[in-house]
This record gives sequence, C-alpha cells and structure tokens, in this order.
Amino acid sequence: MRMYDVIDKKKKGSKLTGEEIRFAVEGYVKKEIPDYQMAALLMAIYYQGMDDEELLELTNCMAESGDRVDLSGIQGIKVDKHSTGGVGDKTTLAVAPLVAACGGKVAKMSGRGLGFTGGTVDKLESIPGMELGLSQDKFFRIVNETGLSIISQSAEIAPADKKLYALRDVTATVDSIPLIAASVMSKKLAAGSDKIILDVTVGSGAFMKTREDAIQLAQKMVAIGEGAGRQTVAFLTNMDVPLGVAVGNDIEVIEAIHTLQGKGPEDFQEICLLFASHMLYMGGRGSLEECKAQAREAMENGRALEKLVQMVDNQGGDSSYITSPEKFSPAPFQQEITAWEDGYITGMDTERCGRAAVILGAGRETKDSRIDAAAGIRFWHKTGDSVKTGDPVATLYASDKKKLEEGTEYLKKAYTFGKERVEPMPSVLAFVSKDGVVDMGTNLQ
Amino acid sequence: MRMYDVIDKKKKGSKLTGEEIRFAVEGYVKKEIPDYQMAALLMAIYYQGMDDEELLELTNCMAESGDRVDLSGIQGIKVDKHSTGGVGDKTTLAVAPLVAACGGKVAKMSGRGLGFTGGTVDKLESIPGMELGLSQDKFFRIVNETGLSIISQSAEIAPADKKLYALRDVTATVDSIPLIAASVMSKKLAAGSDKIILDVTVGSGAFMKTREDAIQLAQKMVAIGEGAGRQTVAFLTNMDVPLGVAVGNDIEVIEAIHTLQGKGPEDFQEICLLFASHMLYMGGRGSLEECKAQAREAMENGRALEKLVQMVDNQGGDSSYITSPEKFSPAPFQQEITAWEDGYITGMDTERCGRAAVILGAGRETKDSRIDAAAGIRFWHKTGDSVKTGDPVATLYASDKKKLEEGTEYLKKAYTFGKERVEPMPSVLAFVSKDGVVDMGTNLQ
Repeated sequence: MRMYDVIDKKKKGSKLTGEEIRFAVEGYVKKEIPDYQMAALLMAIYYQGMDDEELLELTNCMAESGDRVDLSGIQGIKVDKHSTGGVGDKTTLAVAPLVAACGGKVAKMSGRGLGFTGGTVDKLESIPGMELGLSQDKFFRIVNETGLSIISQSAEIAPADKKLYALRDVTATVDSIPLIAASVMSKKLAAGSDKIILDVTVGSGAFMKTREDAIQLAQKMVAIGEGAGRQTVAFLTNMDVPLGVAVGNDIEVIEAIHTLQGKGPEDFQEICLLFASHMLYMGGRGSLEECKAQAREAMENGRALEKLVQMVDNQGGDSSYITSPEKFSPAPFQQEITAWEDGYITGMDTERCGRAAVILGAGRETKDSRIDAAAGIRFWHKTGDSVKTGDPVATLYASDKKKLEEGTEYLKKAYTFGKERVEPMPSVLAFVSKDGVVDMGTNLQ
Repeated sequence: MRMYDVIDKKKKGSKLTGEEIRFAVEGYVKKEIPDYQMAALLMAIYYQGMDDEELLELTNCMAESGDRVDLSGIQGIKVDKHSTGGVGDKTTLAVAPLVAACGGKVAKMSGRGLGFTGGTVDKLESIPGMELGLSQDKFFRIVNETGLSIISQSAEIAPADKKLYALRDVTATVDSIPLIAASVMSKKLAAGSDKIILDVTVGSGAFMKTREDAIQLAQKMVAIGEGAGRQTVAFLTNMDVPLGVAVGNDIEVIEAIHTLQGKGPEDFQEICLLFASHMLYMGGRGSLEECKAQAREAMENGRALEKLVQMVDNQGGDSSYITSPEKFSPAPFQQEITAWEDGYITGMDTERCGRAAVILGAGRETKDSRIDAAAGIRFWHKTGDSVKTGDPVATLYASDKKKLEEGTEYLKKAYTFGKERVEPMPSVLAFVSKDGVVDMGTNLQ
C-alpha cells in the first residue's frame, strides 16, 4: 500500500477502506509517513469528507494509538460528559458534584483551555493546593470511595490525535467537521467510559457558528460513539452569549459554587441540572423524571456542594475556598463597561468576549502562556436585556493595568445595542441521539 | 504574512493576491515554508483552482526562481515549441530542422522522458557522440551561425517548479490543470523565447484524457503566456494513438530522418509541417500560406535533413548515422504481435503502448533508470485500420529476452478489435489563441 494512492483515492471522493485509514494513521504516528503527505490527505478530507464507517475507523485508530483507560476498576456505569468548548463554560465544575451527590460515578479527565475557550483543569487549579495529575490508582480509589474525581488528561491518551491536531493547526484543516468529530471521540473512546453525553456548543462563542454545522458535528460524534458500542447522545447548547455571568478562572469557580448553592445564574443552573439528570439517567439511576428530581434535590440540600468540598480535600486542595469563596483574592485592577445607548442589548460577539478574557490574562495565547487566575469578566447584562445609558453591563478584572485597558477596549466592540428587543436563543437547541434530532425550541426540558 | 492564512484563504475559495503567492513560492524555495504547508496549499489549489491573474503571478514567481535565459544574443524572433508529452512524440527532431532550413532561429532547450512519455534529449543521445550539455556561449554561437541547436534543459531553469513538482508527485496533486499550466509555462518563460507554440496532446496516451481538459489547459497556458507579454498559441493534437509508427529512441530518430526525407508516416509528417509553418509564421517569415510552402519545400529538397546533419556535426555527434540510419544497431531480440481477430483495430490504449516501450527498456521507470536506445516498438497498423487474423500489427525490439516477453504481453492488452470500423480522431483537434478556440474537426489546415 502506498500513501500516494490513499491520498489520490480520497482526493477523487472515494471511500477509504479500514486498511487504508489504518495504514495512514499508524504510518504517520510511526513517522513512516511524512507530514506533507498527511497534510495533503487532511486537506482532501476537508473537501471530500468521510462517511460514518470511515470516521469510526479513523477514530478507533486514533484512540488505539496510546493508552486506553480501563475503568472497570470503578463500579457502576461510567458516563462521561464532554463539551466542544465555549466562553464561561464551567459546567463540569457543577455537574460532576451534582451527579456524584446522587450516587453516580464520575471519573473525569479534563483538558486545559486554549484560544478563546477555557478549560476545566485551569479553573480547578485556581483552588490552592489542588492536584490534578493523580496516579490512576489514586484516581480510581477516590472515585470508588466518594464517586468523584477530576484529573488532567494524560498525554498518553490518543497521541495520534495530538500529532494530527498539531498538523491541522498549521495547515488550515482544523475546521473540518469529520476531523473534529474524530478528534473529540478518539479521546472519549480512549478514556474508557461506558456512555457519553456531548455538549455541542453553537453560536458566536463556539467553534460551530451555525446550528446546521453543530447538528452535523453532533450526528457524526453520536455515530462514532454508537459505532464503537458506547451509548452516545448530544445536546446542542447556546454559545451565542457567554454561559452564566462569569468568564475567567477564580470567578468561574465561584460561580459554580453559587450554582451548587442554588443561587447561580438561571441559564447556567438549568444547563447543569439538564446534564446532571441525563448523566444519572444514562447511568441507570432511575427514570429521567426521577433523575431530574434527584439532581435538583442535591442542589437544594447542599449535598452537591459537599461533594465538591470532598473532592477538593481528596486532591490536596484547600476546601475552605469552596466553603468561603470570598477567600479568592480579588484582582488588583477592575474596570466597568457601561451601556452607551438606551434600549436593548441586541448581540454579544461571544468569541470576542472570550478573547477579551484572554487579553486580561485569564486564558492562553500560546500553549506556554501562564494564566492569571484572578483575571476575568463579570457580565451584568446579556443579549435581550433592556439597558439605559450608563448602566453597567460588565466589569473586567486584571492584575495588569495595560491588559485591563486593552481588554476593555476589545470587549466593548463585542456589544451591539438597539431599540428593538432581540429574543435570545434558547439555552438548549436540540437533542441528538442515534434515533435522530429532536428540536428543543423552548427553553429546556 | 502567515502561510496559514494563505492556505486558509485559498481553501475557502478566495483569490490570492500577488503578494500572497510570492510569499508562498519564495518562502518555499528558501525553505522558510515547510513541505506540509505547501502540500496543503497545493491540495487546496487542486480543488479551488486559480484564475488567470493568480496563475500568471504563480508562473512568474516560479520562472524567476532561477536563471532566466537571455536570448537577445541570438538575432531574430525566437519561437519556442513545447509539447505536453506523448507516445512516439519525436516532433522536435523534425520540426526544428525544418524551421532552421527556412531561415528561422531555433534555440531549443528540451527535457528527458519520464514515465510513459519520451523526451527529445534521450532520443538525440542515441546518436553517438552527441553533446547536449553545451555552454550558453556555444549554444548561442551555433544558433547564430546555423539557426539550430537543441540542448538539455539546465537544472537552474525554474528550480521552484522542480521543487513543487517533486512535492506534487508524492502528494497526488500532479493532475491539477492550473498547476500543470504554471509548471510548463514557468520553464517556457524562463527559457527566454519571444513567442511560444504549445502542442497540447489529448487522448489515452496524453496527460489530458479529454478534449475538455485539454482545452482548459491550453487556455490557461495561452493566458499565462500572453499575460507575460509573449504571443502564445496552442494546438490540441491527437494522442489517442501513438504519433507516427515508431516508439523508442533509435527508432524515433530514424522515423524523424525518414520524415525529413518526405517518406514519414502521414500523421506525423502533417503535424511536423503544421508546427514548422506556424513557427515560421510567428517568426515573421511571411504569410501562413508562404510559410507552409517553405516548410514543405525544405522537406522535399532535403535542406531540412541537411540542417539536422549540420546540428549533429556541430554538437559532436556522428552525422553518418543521419545520412545512413541503417548504422543504428538493431536490437538483438524482436517479437511480432499479430491480429487475433478479423475486422478493424477499434482502439489502442496509447498510455499502455508507451508503458510497453518503457518495459522494453526504451524509457525510464525512475529518474535513475538507464535507457536502452535500441528498444522500442514499430506499429504496422493503428486505430481504424482493417486487419485479418495473423496480420502483424506491431514489432517489439529489446536487448533483453525477458523484457521482450513482458513488454509483448503488456502491449497486446493495448489493442481492441471489432467488426465495425471506428473513425480515428483527427490529428489536430483545435487551435487555441488569445482570441478563442477554433475547432479543427477535419484533418489539418
């Protein structure tokens, strides 16, 4: 078999066989196939796509390229949740304790942020002492004993994906829906959970800018998961506004704590209850109605917050920051943005909101950037809200005055105002499973 | 400027600016841009194409990447002829002496064969002593004194094309019409002639398999040439049968000699007169009618053959092989193929004929293969001819018995027979200039 023929076949729009895909991926990982041939194949895939069978093979090859976590040492049905990334997306911080508080087992490997989207690992590292690089033994032990641990994803998970992603990143082939689906799912399959819930974000602050693309991505990921024998479902969620009211690290941890206390922002709280109840339901902990009630109860009676405290304790963190979030040191500098028109907020360029947070120091420009945990943005008003000139719409926090000024100027351009109220997108737009797409036009179910 | 953005822009179907194209090509030649990024760009160009303005810029960058030959030391209008390659295509060997015999100046740089197509340089090297690597001074002096010299194209002509072609060859991006056009024309522009005639072959033995593709390639090359200020025209010629009756090296030189003696195969003779008369016409040597008459006369009165003898003498070759072509040593082994059906030859897979010649030893499997000058094929019948079972249709020549057997089996599969006569394609299908496409449905004009 020659890589030339594999490229040529895909280029002409034919379906690749399992052997051809395996030859390409394995050869690339072993450095028998050079970058330039893989770059040509990736660009051909960008144009010609891949069908479900090809994608499953590609994803399996990538998943098998490194360690495959065996979660059988943890009792019960393991349900993983994965978000395609967004701005203010601290969902895992609240969902995982909610599920664990209701008896679910959450053995979660999370990633770091890059670009305009944040990462769960960075946020948890805001808590002093928190260890996220646990050994597998310790990780399993904690989950078996307490139901909950979140660690940093090891480099040995799907190294083929890492290598392919690095190449895509420099050859303008990142924005290929099949390649995104394979990349996400290769890590999920290698991470070893029994079932998978996907949060596919859509809108100006997500990688998928349109509902159509998001549905396609969700369908491809569901097909891969189901093809690999893992029950997989996806929710399309709104990222046309930041999720909740906080973007940053300390500030998002605090928002998650408030939410576990039942006093979080409505959109974020509802999303957390949705994912928690579906994770419980897929984990076999009752009917969907029962699971919803359990999740809500765990929020109301404080047991979910206790779970978070317990996890932080177990992983060496200072849990007094969870019980007394006022302990997080405030950023030395802050700046308010006020409305410059009477009327309504008609739009927020959410990617711009995320990039503003990066400018403030809350995210990474490059893989080696250091994060400033205190930097971030607090939104007072979002799309659809009525405002008067001079009303505060957001407060920006930074440890560096110059960054604060730059971030403020940058964030201002994210807002548009108008006289007519714009109805914001619902928080959840659709549910995708192997049975098809269900519209969720009204807010949450 | 970043290569990433150039790739992304072309990928999305936008037109690249001159600066972007120059950045990519110059950066690639200087090794500042890695192979994998160029491979991604080439694949994007394969799908998105390039318009005339982009192509002119690309071609100019490639032409400027190495030496540009300054032919001003040669008096008169220099007209270059270039074929996109074919099987049995020994046109230059006859056309160049015809033009020079009529007073035209032919300062021609030719290439070697690769794959199933032959090259003029290889064919001329069959003549003992023939030197094709002349210095520029000597080359110019010979052309000024005698009107004719053919040399081997220097490696310093358009090195960007060489580098890009090598990458295309391993990334399945050779068969892109815009990239083929830029590749051919970059060498023509660097070679310095004033005007250019292109022979765009079409059919089973050409790179362009369909008339539509060939027209498109011709139009793109004409647009590039005209855009660079060189009058450029193209003829579409039939490569659905081998040209003439000989494929090989010695055997093609002999066929060219016969043709200059007025006893060549009709299709080949007509093609030679067509190109010679148009080269003379573009070189300002009279009306097209006058130039046709001159070319025919030079063939009939033996002056064109004398020119070939003179060129061989000037370049150290043994011209007695031209005056007495029987001196070429016959191949030690030969094998006849006979018709296995009564009726007509309904088709010849001409690429297969070319590959059969390569198997016999007449061409190169790889760049380093040695050529066996005596190996080749003599066709006794071509598409459209009536045959009876047992009639010889071709004789194969080789210096190696095993190759002869292998080549014979291979060539047999090139023929199809049938009861109904198939009208062969005319030798010349169309004429393409900046004024448009002229159909040449009937045989030759």
